[in-house]
Amino acid sequence: MSAPAVVSVRDLASHVGEVVRVRGWLTNRRKSGGLQFLQVRDGSGTVQAVAKKDSLDAALFEALSGLGQESSLIVDGEVAADPRSPGGVELKLTGGQVIGTATDFPISNKEHSSGFLMEHRHLWLRSSKQAATLRVRARIIKSIRDYFDSRGYICFDAPMFTPAACEGTSTLFEVDYFGEPAYLTQSGQLYGEAGAMALGKIYTFGPTFRAEKSKTRKHLTEFWMIEPEIAFATLDDVMDVAEEFIETIVQDVLADCEPELTVLERDLDKLRAIKRPFKRETYDESVARMEAAGHAFKHGDDFGAPDEEFITHGSDKPVLVHRWPADIKAFYMKRDPADDTRALAVDVIAPEGYGEIIGGSERADDLAFLEEQIAAHKLPKESFEWYLDLRRYGSVPHGGFGLGLERTVAWICGTKHIRECIPFPRMLYKIYP
Amino acid sequence: MSAPAVVSVRDLASHVGEVVRVRGWLTNRRKSGGLQFLQVRDGSGTVQAVAKKDSLDAALFEALSGLGQESSLIVDGEVAADPRSPGGVELKLTGGQVIGTATDFPISNKEHSSGFLMEHRHLWLRSSKQAATLRVRARIIKSIRDYFDSRGYICFDAPMFTPAACEGTSTLFEVDYFGEPAYLTQSGQLYGEAGAMALGKIYTFGPTFRAEKSKTRKHLTEFWMIEPEIAFATLDDVMDVAEEFIETIVQDVLADCEPELTVLERDLDKLRAIKRPFKRETYDESVARMEAAGHAFKHGDDFGAPDEEFITHGSDKPVLVHRWPADIKAFYMKRDPADDTRALAVDVIAPEGYGEIIGGSERADDLAFLEEQIAAHKLPKESFEWYLDLRRYGSVPHGGFGLGLERTVAWICGTKHIRECIPFPRMLYKIYP
Repeated sequence: MSAPAVVSVRDLASHVGEVVRVRGWLTNRRKSGGLQFLQVRDGSGTVQAVAKKDSLDAALFEALSGLGQESSLIVDGEVAADPRSPGGVELKLTGGQVIGTATDFPISNKEHSSGFLMEHRHLWLRSSKQAATLRVRARIIKSIRDYFDSRGYICFDAPMFTPAACEGTSTLFEVDYFGEPAYLTQSGQLYGEAGAMALGKIYTFGPTFRAEKSKTRKHLTEFWMIEPEIAFATLDDVMDVAEEFIETIVQDVLADCEPELTVLERDLDKLRAIKRPFKRETYDESVARMEAAGHAFKHGDDFGAPDEEFITHGSDKPVLVHRWPADIKAFYMKRDPADDTRALAVDVIAPEGYGEIIGGSERADDLAFLEEQIAAHKLPKESFEWYLDLRRYGSVPHGGFGLGLERTVAWICGTKHIRECIPFPRMLYKIYP
Repeated sequence: MSAPAVVSVRDLASHVGEVVRVRGWLTNRRKSGGLQFLQVRDGSGTVQAVAKKDSLDAALFEALSGLGQESSLIVDGEVAADPRSPGGVELKLTGGQVIGTATDFPISNKEHSSGFLMEHRHLWLRSSKQAATLRVRARIIKSIRDYFDSRGYICFDAPMFTPAACEGTSTLFEVDYFGEPAYLTQSGQLYGEAGAMALGKIYTFGPTFRAEKSKTRKHLTEFWMIEPEIAFATLDDVMDVAEEFIETIVQDVLADCEPELTVLERDLDKLRAIKRPFKRETYDESVARMEAAGHAFKHGDDFGAPDEEFITHGSDKPVLVHRWPADIKAFYMKRDPADDTRALAVDVIAPEGYGEIIGGSERADDLAFLEEQIAAHKLPKESFEWYLDLRRYGSVPHGGFGLGLERTVAWICGTKHIRECIPFPRMLYKIYP
């Protein structure tokens, strides 16, 4: 007799009445008389497998009864409808095989310290919430790429090694590049601008690095960023894309990841509310709101976490804040023709306290202005000659934004700690495993 | 009157008879009496715009006649069918506007040295072959992700900062990580194995780094690699996936990128031939073929470029070579139960001299064996404790492979130099722009 077909736990519901094979790991087990109820996960989901002493090989029944958490096994059984179980089915075992035993798996259902869990990240990944978060992350990545791929953007990978800093040198990681200093990229944007001049619309999507000495729940030293860049785009175009983009990824996740969001106990109504239009206001309007409400804030400063929470307070959607004081924004941003002290920049602030998830702008397209800015910011001009060339040869209005992937995953999953939103987080003093 | 709708050059053919707007750059221009023929590229393609002195504003006609290569402009015109032009249409100008002038664009149709072109990579990207190569690259990336996403694999980003070397330390880039040494990843595989145990089937897809002091046309210091890892997979499963995967991406590119492949003068029949099954042979069979043909090769050595060319000579498809001498392969590979001197490894060698594009294996799943290997290779065991945990807690047979993205792009595009297959290549002594 040939072996039953291997079926993913996630697909079991369409195999009711069939005998199938599931390959996975034991997450939990309970006995009741001549019955064993085994929780088996295969990475796509978890199913209850019922072993009945009378109808199973005695040696196998015995082997199963001694198995520790996270032992690996193959189980064959008939798929039976069971409305009480999360997936709607259970498995009535007819056979199986133990593959690899495990005893004293370090992570149990009891409370562990976050330090302990991070030291065991390679095993913690198997926990249902961690696995669900990473499945949502993968769905978000697909949604991001589909959004741009289906609208004529070309995926354009910016380099990791760069000769110069884009936004200050204090948070750069330095690498010995065959005897010369090189830096790990903080943003693919400047390269993306060259790409937009060649290909019209591009997006970069890769790791970026910040050597920030902050140990907050919102900081990673290595995180993924997506940065579209669009030739002939104005700030309004950039804001339109950002809005539609955010709505699309949230609604895609809602449509496909309800099982994961349920594991994560996410309030789905909060996500259903993320529909355009979002609120847009200028920085000055934001500050006026703070002043009117008695929220302490110094006009001209950048927003901190409490200010971001104020901005979205009472709103169930992201808020777009635009036209920022130019002197707290990057050198490459275009000034507002109506007010030279303002940069044509936008931050998108997520609701529920998740803070800034997008920063974008229309880029300066005038050569003389950019040369002044590079001098004023004391940046090494020779490192930016290539970037200035983009204004020397057929300059056009253009703009784009950067979205931090992990912050977006944290928001959509309702997860407080960004470190759970990437498989192996890198933080201050933390690179193992 | 409102402005005409902006249309991508690639989409013009479905707007014949309409007046549309194209925004882009001038790549070439020729005059004939009262006519100007302007080649305008917008990143999606190039169209000929015909300016007729009689029917155009005199100042605009004059401005156009003085425009240098790569000046940016907006042109409005009626789309007319023109079977002689590559896109099947041309544009009869009715209006327009010069946006940014350019004079003395550094790259012309004449021959330039590769050093010069690499120094001007940010502008060279605008050349038709470079842009076509990057569009094919983007299509390949999409195909790779779609292949895995649609088959239940979870995208699982491995870290860039790692505490230890996966395959020897001589080609590692070292980073100062807050006072501790860290290394840039050479492969996401070991992390991917942890992911497969948590999620069943995963793929990593990100930059990897090799500080190789070789200046060949096949080496980059920074390149993108895709690495699927599959729980419960054997070497045969890995080879089946690799074959189907390669066939899928080549056929996807053929289906969608004929305009780009035509620009690149690629022989499409060579790509049409990439259909399963591919030839599979053991390392020993490969060597026997070499010996029989009088091709000089030392049994037990790794293949060099001439050997790889021999292996695929006379074949129009990739060749899978499996069961390699264990002592020239990585420590984590499982041994062949039928011959302990052989690793259950496979290399996939592309035809036409493009060499190895995939390396894969079934992984060692036995704790004691792996501990021996780590000792024998003098690797620091403490750095691998987490990896050994994967064998301590529910070990399962598993395997996967790594595909080098840029080599695959080079092969599919028929491009000799891998440096043209990534937007900003990083090579020995080369990180600008």
